[in-house]
Amino acid sequence: MTKSVSTLAAGSAGTVETRYLDLPEPVRLDCGRELHPVRVAYETYGVLSPRRDNVVLVCHALSGDAHAAGFAKAPPEESTRDGFGAEDRDGSAVKGLGWWDGMIGSGKAFDTDRFFVVSTNLLGGCSGTTGPSSADPATGRPYGPDFPVITVADMVRTQRAFLDALGIERLAAVAGGSLGGMQALEWAILFPDQVDAVVAIASTHALQPQGVAWNAIAREAIMRDPAWQGGRYYGTDRAPDAGMGVARMVGHVTYLSASALGAKFGRRLQVADDIRYTITDAEFSVESYLRHQAGSFVKRFDANTYLYTSRALTYFDLARQYGGGSLVRALDGVSARTLLIAFSSDWLYPPSASREIEEALRALGRPVEFHVIDAPYGHDCFLLEEARQTPIIRRFLSNHRPAEGGAG
Amino acid sequence: MTKSVSTLAAGSAGTVETRYLDLPEPVRLDCGRELHPVRVAYETYGVLSPRRDNVVLVCHALSGDAHAAGFAKAPPEESTRDGFGAEDRDGSAVKGLGWWDGMIGSGKAFDTDRFFVVSTNLLGGCSGTTGPSSADPATGRPYGPDFPVITVADMVRTQRAFLDALGIERLAAVAGGSLGGMQALEWAILFPDQVDAVVAIASTHALQPQGVAWNAIAREAIMRDPAWQGGRYYGTDRAPDAGMGVARMVGHVTYLSASALGAKFGRRLQVADDIRYTITDAEFSVESYLRHQAGSFVKRFDANTYLYTSRALTYFDLARQYGGGSLVRALDGVSARTLLIAFSSDWLYPPSASREIEEALRALGRPVEFHVIDAPYGHDCFLLEEARQTPIIRRFLSNHRPAEGGAG
Repeated sequence: MTKSVSTLAAGSAGTVETRYLDLPEPVRLDCGRELHPVRVAYETYGVLSPRRDNVVLVCHALSGDAHAAGFAKAPPEESTRDGFGAEDRDGSAVKGLGWWDGMIGSGKAFDTDRFFVVSTNLLGGCSGTTGPSSADPATGRPYGPDFPVITVADMVRTQRAFLDALGIERLAAVAGGSLGGMQALEWAILFPDQVDAVVAIASTHALQPQGVAWNAIAREAIMRDPAWQGGRYYGTDRAPDAGMGVARMVGHVTYLSASALGAKFGRRLQVADDIRYTITDAEFSVESYLRHQAGSFVKRFDANTYLYTSRALTYFDLARQYGGGSLVRALDGVSARTLLIAFSSDWLYPPSASREIEEALRALGRPVEFHVIDAPYGHDCFLLEEARQTPIIRRFLSNHRPAEGGAG
Repeated sequence: MTKSVSTLAAGSAGTVETRYLDLPEPVRLDCGRELHPVRVAYETYGVLSPRRDNVVLVCHALSGDAHAAGFAKAPPEESTRDGFGAEDRDGSAVKGLGWWDGMIGSGKAFDTDRFFVVSTNLLGGCSGTTGPSSADPATGRPYGPDFPVITVADMVRTQRAFLDALGIERLAAVAGGSLGGMQALEWAILFPDQVDAVVAIASTHALQPQGVAWNAIAREAIMRDPAWQGGRYYGTDRAPDAGMGVARMVGHVTYLSASALGAKFGRRLQVADDIRYTITDAEFSVESYLRHQAGSFVKRFDANTYLYTSRALTYFDLARQYGGGSLVRALDGVSARTLLIAFSSDWLYPPSASREIEEALRALGRPVEFHVIDAPYGHDCFLLEEARQTPIIRRFLSNHRPAEGGAG
């Protein structure tokens, strides 16, 4: 029943190009507004089955984009294999490689020999999908702070409309890590009849208060930068790079475990054998690393998209949104099979949150699997621990579904 | 032998006034420079014994000052009972109360019926002791970035010179939490014959890499604020309050445990029953709390002092400074009895660091006690868990010393 797992033999999704689709209808948003026009940037890997029953939607995290797998046809200057910045961990990332390339391709976790994998840039994004940097049709200028405040549900409704336009009704699976996992869970609630399976990795039903605090600090760093200009920095000669850099640094440290940071950098000095008595220069290697991460991030990411996406992920709270405070009640309508994966060292999205989802689904008698992978890298594990996630995901996707081409 | 502990009967150090002393000689600094003049702000509590053998030096942490106990004669607008910002935890702090008032006074951990407790604002400070905001004698203007980069050892040498000027040769004990504990440990190495006992609470022999990263981010937030102006903001109409606020927020979250933040704030919304779809306003209570902390901090603390003090505490590394990489070798000269206290939930200064100090001292056959207090508040415990630290410290200070007035 289970295909033999061979990550060694796994193949690349090849050279891919991001495409764009304009939604025919406005998207209705939780805040009460409608958004129109909405363009969606997307990529696909693999082949759509004749019955259109092999679609896996992959959802990205805070700083990702539609380029999830394969090589970009026109690689950006800075690698985008960086759902959370893993690119610089070992200096090994290839320019233009998708952020989840290790998980998507022939023989990989999301096997393109079998599945038609679809990846979109999320609503509010800055990599092709309509977001705060897009033109507001009312003014012809970028929305900036006039962009509506969006939710994870709004992102999911946009993906639903996008798939409609592609003629895809059902999802064999919806998958993602972190904010991507939130989208997957939201799919299972909003469109229970159209999702067969959910794969939520290093995610949660509601960010813990410390995570809310870190996100607030990152947003403060951006909004307190005078160059942010109330969000109207487009077309000026200034952008809130200083604040964005600080936001990114905060993010980075929360995405790693203390022990991983210790193992990688320790207290190693950057330049000399001894301290140089400097306030302004990077003295420790970890300080230099953070500055580098900040510098490369601001070149490729829009500050307002960061604000809107960060806000959406702090708002996400399934029990509040759908259960009057009860997670069990919120998940009552879910019919998809659910796979939850968490990482022992992830202190931003700790395993306990996934455990709560598992227990709620179990209490409802829904099919659910939960795996805690003992791994040291913290939240970034969802981007890095490909080899250990792969067999779990492959088995989950193969054991419980009809064989490919079978009864859809 | 041990006095009965009665924190209920413990008395206040009374109304106190910060005093100032100008050191007669320049202070030689690790960086090679000399600093002159140096003024030291200080307070004392209790009575100096005729033999001058009952002196306890208390050292403050990153954002503290000389006002450790009692009521300030002229209370500042913002409470300074805030070595790390505990003042707003329960809204219960009294204006003008010292940052370690619960630990210093009649019948308290540092018992003023017995000890003459001395507290100084550290070198580089902004509350009376010479620091970057003081006048540079070469220019008549504030030093700003021309202030020399200082170390914890420089702080300790300044305290030594200050005590000399007061005619105090020996310390019955030197005590502090966090950076204050670093100073206490540095005293035991620099002046082994002049320190009878060390009390280092929630501290370390070298900040872990994640702590180095958090401190770097806080400094980046300040230095990236254009109002910092390269450190020359004094006398201009701008100060880096925006960046300082972000630095303070980062600090706050690291001083608390995730569970303490969860217990205090949860995901409670600040204003309404439901979300208000806002990017700029504080929506969650924890967001509002962080903004409040940032706002009150910038009113009372100098940004350059923050930079210099943060740099000093990241440089602090006993094994590097004194042991050629070996902590055991670094501590070889210590003759003081040492009491180490750590808190189970302190992830910024985790108990493991204190354990390493204990093991090194034990390997050297030096007298050492180590207590891990199981408490939920994180690093802030050293300011909050007074009742549980008190019996440990009282016993340590009474059991192993000659009775007061005894053989000095």
